[in-house]
Amino acid sequence: MVGATGYTGQGLLRILGRHPRVRLAVATSVREAGRPVAEVLPEFDGLYDLRLCSLDEAKRRPVDVLFLAVGHGEAISFLSDYPYLSKTRVIDLSADFRFRDPAVYQSVYGKAVPAGLNRKFVYGLTEVFRKQIRRARFVSNPGCYVTSVLLPLYPLLARRLLRPDGAIVVTSASGVSGAGATPKSETHFCEVAGDYSPYKPLREHRHLHEIEAYLSRFGAKLVFTPHLLPIKHGILSDIAVRVKDAPKLLEEKIMSAWRNAYRGCAFVKPVAHLVRVAETAGTNLAKFAVRVDPETRTVLIFSALDNLLKGASGQAVQNLNVMMGWPEETGLLGRI
Amino acid sequence: MVGATGYTGQGLLRILGRHPRVRLAVATSVREAGRPVAEVLPEFDGLYDLRLCSLDEAKRRPVDVLFLAVGHGEAISFLSDYPYLSKTRVIDLSADFRFRDPAVYQSVYGKAVPAGLNRKFVYGLTEVFRKQIRRARFVSNPGCYVTSVLLPLYPLLARRLLRPDGAIVVTSASGVSGAGATPKSETHFCEVAGDYSPYKPLREHRHLHEIEAYLSRFGAKLVFTPHLLPIKHGILSDIAVRVKDAPKLLEEKIMSAWRNAYRGCAFVKPVAHLVRVAETAGTNLAKFAVRVDPETRTVLIFSALDNLLKGASGQAVQNLNVMMGWPEETGLLGRI
Amino acid sequence: MVGATGYTGQGLLRILGRHPRVRLAVATSVREAGRPVAEVLPEFDGLYDLRLCSLDEAKRRPVDVLFLAVGHGEAISFLSDYPYLSKTRVIDLSADFRFRDPAVYQSVYGKAVPAGLNRKFVYGLTEVFRKQIRRARFVSNPGCYVTSVLLPLYPLLARRLLRPDGAIVVTSASGVSGAGATPKSETHFCEVAGDYSPYKPLREHRHLHEIEAYLSRFGAKLVFTPHLLPIKHGILSDIAVRVKDAPKLLEEKIMSAWRNAYRGCAFVKPVAHLVRVAETAGTNLAKFAVRVDPETRTVLIFSALDNLLKGASGQAVQNLNVMMGWPEETGLLGRI
Amino acid sequence: MVGATGYTGQGLLRILGRHPRVRLAVATSVREAGRPVAEVLPEFDGLYDLRLCSLDEAKRRPVDVLFLAVGHGEAISFLSDYPYLSKTRVIDLSADFRFRDPAVYQSVYGKAVPAGLNRKFVYGLTEVFRKQIRRARFVSNPGCYVTSVLLPLYPLLARRLLRPDGAIVVTSASGVSGAGATPKSETHFCEVAGDYSPYKPLREHRHLHEIEAYLSRFGAKLVFTPHLLPIKHGILSDIAVRVKDAPKLLEEKIMSAWRNAYRGCAFVKPVAHLVRVAETAGTNLAKFAVRVDPETRTVLIFSALDNLLKGASGQAVQNLNVMMGWPEETGLLGRI
Repeated sequence: MVGATGYTGQGLLRILGRHPRVRLAVATSVREAGRPVAEVLPEFDGLYDLRLCSLDEAKRRPVDVLFLAVGHGEAISFLSDYPYLSKTRVIDLSADFRFRDPAVYQSVYGKAVPAGLNRKFVYGLTEVFRKQIRRARFVSNPGCYVTSVLLPLYPLLARRLLRPDGAIVVTSASGVSGAGATPKSETHFCEVAGDYSPYKPLREHRHLHEIEAYLSRFGAKLVFTPHLLPIKHGILSDIAVRVKDAPKLLEEKIMSAWRNAYRGCAFVKPVAHLVRVAETAGTNLAKFAVRVDPETRTVLIFSALDNLLKGASGQAVQNLNVMMGWPEETGLLGRI
Repeated sequence: MVGATGYTGQGLLRILGRHPRVRLAVATSVREAGRPVAEVLPEFDGLYDLRLCSLDEAKRRPVDVLFLAVGHGEAISFLSDYPYLSKTRVIDLSADFRFRDPAVYQSVYGKAVPAGLNRKFVYGLTEVFRKQIRRARFVSNPGCYVTSVLLPLYPLLARRLLRPDGAIVVTSASGVSGAGATPKSETHFCEVAGDYSPYKPLREHRHLHEIEAYLSRFGAKLVFTPHLLPIKHGILSDIAVRVKDAPKLLEEKIMSAWRNAYRGCAFVKPVAHLVRVAETAGTNLAKFAVRVDPETRTVLIFSALDNLLKGASGQAVQNLNVMMGWPEETGLLGRI
Repeated sequence: MVGATGYTGQGLLRILGRHPRVRLAVATSVREAGRPVAEVLPEFDGLYDLRLCSLDEAKRRPVDVLFLAVGHGEAISFLSDYPYLSKTRVIDLSADFRFRDPAVYQSVYGKAVPAGLNRKFVYGLTEVFRKQIRRARFVSNPGCYVTSVLLPLYPLLARRLLRPDGAIVVTSASGVSGAGATPKSETHFCEVAGDYSPYKPLREHRHLHEIEAYLSRFGAKLVFTPHLLPIKHGILSDIAVRVKDAPKLLEEKIMSAWRNAYRGCAFVKPVAHLVRVAETAGTNLAKFAVRVDPETRTVLIFSALDNLLKGASGQAVQNLNVMMGWPEETGLLGRI
Repeated sequence: MVGATGYTGQGLLRILGRHPRVRLAVATSVREAGRPVAEVLPEFDGLYDLRLCSLDEAKRRPVDVLFLAVGHGEAISFLSDYPYLSKTRVIDLSADFRFRDPAVYQSVYGKAVPAGLNRKFVYGLTEVFRKQIRRARFVSNPGCYVTSVLLPLYPLLARRLLRPDGAIVVTSASGVSGAGATPKSETHFCEVAGDYSPYKPLREHRHLHEIEAYLSRFGAKLVFTPHLLPIKHGILSDIAVRVKDAPKLLEEKIMSAWRNAYRGCAFVKPVAHLVRVAETAGTNLAKFAVRVDPETRTVLIFSALDNLLKGASGQAVQNLNVMMGWPEETGLLGRI
């Protein structure tokens, strides 16, 4: 694993430490290389007897599966001279290989992604692209906000159950862990506690472009406003879709479409009540609810998940399970 | 003051205790009648030397101005046999007299409001209806969410600067004090901390109807979704208005319309940065910001205020100042 | 299980739902009798297909093991006419059978405990009384603060490694879940968030008497001050013991005594760093650290655990495992 | 003012902006020099029309009173070549001039303080050293924990009402703002929320030495354990003093001694109920309560204040008022 001390890295450590089929061989940390995992992260005392190592050392140590829990640009950089690329499975949690079109990545992230390597990656929205993931050797794990929006919308748009009349208004809120473990003024307790604030609205947030990259095939555009919540982890997305006609019974049709699309999926749950962030916190679950307002012709969807689990490390391990042909739930049930 | 121990009552106590022109003569509490204010609410130790009294006692004690900080229905009930109605000024913080049309009140709150009395009330959205408030003897203080939505939208719709193409999507979030001081499962610390949850979406929340009551004159309909935030006080409303044409320069036009509409208003501040809840917490300020997305033809407005101050007790005292002809800011500057 | 919807009941549901050897047959709720568990507590959707029942119904349904997750007095009352008392194992999480001397229970809780039944109970401080628990049919689960104080102190006092010179000063702080799920003014989010407050200091808190009941055999008295923390769960106890002589090397002696006393115990961990509440939250762990100040002859112990797990439901299931001869960690590893 | 963007600097800005006798002439910020105050800190929009400047510029601009809201060492450094030292009043909020004995400062802070300059400083614990402050031109403002401990203890020890039998056990807890505005891993929201942790116990925290510097004259030693609380601001100190004899009526004697010692002091309030942190948050108040346990011969004092106000900026302005001969409460009443 590359990048063990960030929040997604820690999430992977938490899951993999109890995963019955996995033994962690390598864990890097640029700043803490050389120190035992359990010394840097006391939570893992007794679970790992391993020293953190440098990126260079990780490149000398072949592994079966390589997790990249790093910032954007760093996955491209690490893989550029990784000697075991032809044999290793790669699950990348960064944004580097999430766009099928390298030009879009370049315009959003401001740097080039090697087109050849990019082509090998499959987009790891597990329940939607499971078939492709099963055969993939390279998986790019989706963004957290993105997962919360695509999971409920994708099957409805794909089946033409929803035909948006104008842009979809997505209002999302995320816990602070989404901003990463590196201390910043914006993540200082005194700046966050008691506050709630929008950031990077409309076309500013990079996840907007990732969502549109997968929904534009259905002609969908988004008005996207993320917010910072004074909680540690969890995402709620409110998705307001205006349609030509919104009879009340559309609620049941959508529930039923979700149930069909996600039949047998342990981690995706349409529910009748209004979902709350805390219901999914600490789990790999994504939960949705829907309400319809005939008067304003609006379908309103609520989607909740844990940004560090189903929105990052949990889905990454789910993808591992799918790639390896293991039961998809392995190591992911209950609280993590 | 009727209802001194709820959160809006406490807010009034906090402001009036330092207001240079006010002496509190009467404060009621159904449950704590007979006990000194400072014993029930230690915060006011040294500020008030007054015993809480019963509703009946309050009806025997004439006052110049009567604040009603009670639940809906209770203002109607208190005033029904209040002997000094012909001489006293009344500022009602309940919902009872907020609708010009008694039938709407009845359909939303499920009970009748006396039409004659209702007619005497002016709607206390201070900066919008200041002229009427100045001449009023009965003022009905607006709801908290309502204030956060009407203040930024009213002048834009009234001047036809915004002509909504379809329903306006309002996504609001409020601190827990908005749910009142009475302990409920929904306000238990363990149910709120670490969580974020929508409630009463679409046409379920009564404030939706209050907002539409004042915006329907401009043909506006709303998709309204309130949320509970794990903070004590503060409201943020995101207001997404789709229009026929949204050039980038609309941002500056809106800022300028706000500056004109609210020129000389100490408590309403259009700002260039994205507003945060914490900026207004503990003050009587309402702050707005605007962003425009030409691609989706969307005007996105952010509006923040403190639900207990500009959203309730602060605006009530502001209305008092206006009614009495005192400087509007008296007792309301700085932190409260 | 009697009392499924309180916080300790919910904790049991969470653990037992994934415990490989347990099938929940009965779960009571006075207020929610008749409703499915998963409807009342959406978290358990998919985990339990069971309706909550009344106390009376629970008395008609024999079970192998009976958990009582009720308030004090209610366990005595339930067992008084429980027809299967002679065959069923009982694990009581209330305070009713925690005192070997019924007179002490009476003086602390103000009611009588039947002496005959009380005599059958073993005190379920697992790591200290494991031998007795193994042979017991009736186990009384310790209080949360009590567990945090007894676990580190008991072996040190029992081995005479610490001989207190005067009263031991215990300053504890607990998350809000310790106050129970019933909404009260003291657990209202707005009363707790941003605050920190002492309550029931010195001899007022009942847990003081439970601690002294087990430590008085070593001549120890306590100055006990509990506090309410603005967090959901977790306890930290600071334990300051003044001794005749406190050389620096006493730190290592105490660490070593703990390691001996708790060798092979998965859930009790002496650590070198200063423990934090969050390290144990969501786990069944109790962690201790020690610092010695020769200048003031003080041994300062820090003890952390999750009040709902090792401090309640976790330890209860640990006792179940011990009573049944199952591996003690069954169902209790990792995050719960 | 030197150091306007740290939390104590912001506290000063908040108070001085409404102080009727003060006009802020200069405000420095090493990192933000050149930018308007209101741009860096939007809260002060409309209150200050001033640009932040560099330290060098501040040294070229004479002022009547100089506030130093800087880290330790930096006050010494700034004053070392400050050209107006002979005419300007100085109120230093750093630790640099808090110790009458320069050797103690050196041993605690690891650097030398110029003895001549140090001699000119008076210790700004307002209510205790008011007489000296009135005549002083140089005031050193006490530490936050220190104020919370000295205010209740000083008069009791000075009058020999308390004669500690052994070290006094002080267990304190502070909000995160006490750790400063600079982002650190320890102040990251995700590391603090849901947690509670001790740090620098026994003789490690520098405030221990500052407290002992003022209490050693009465023969008092301390066992001191500070904790980090998941709140923004506020301090609670529990002070357990073992005495030879602790009859219950000692409670009333102590209350009465406090009332005498602090007669006419607007900001120091002995109270009958157990104090809570939130009672003093946002005010310049210090509140105390006392409980006595005859059984363990313990006097237990609870002391609460806002670490940024009475514990820093509030007390600094109080000292300004005293030095200038203005009413001591000027600018400090109510919420700040």
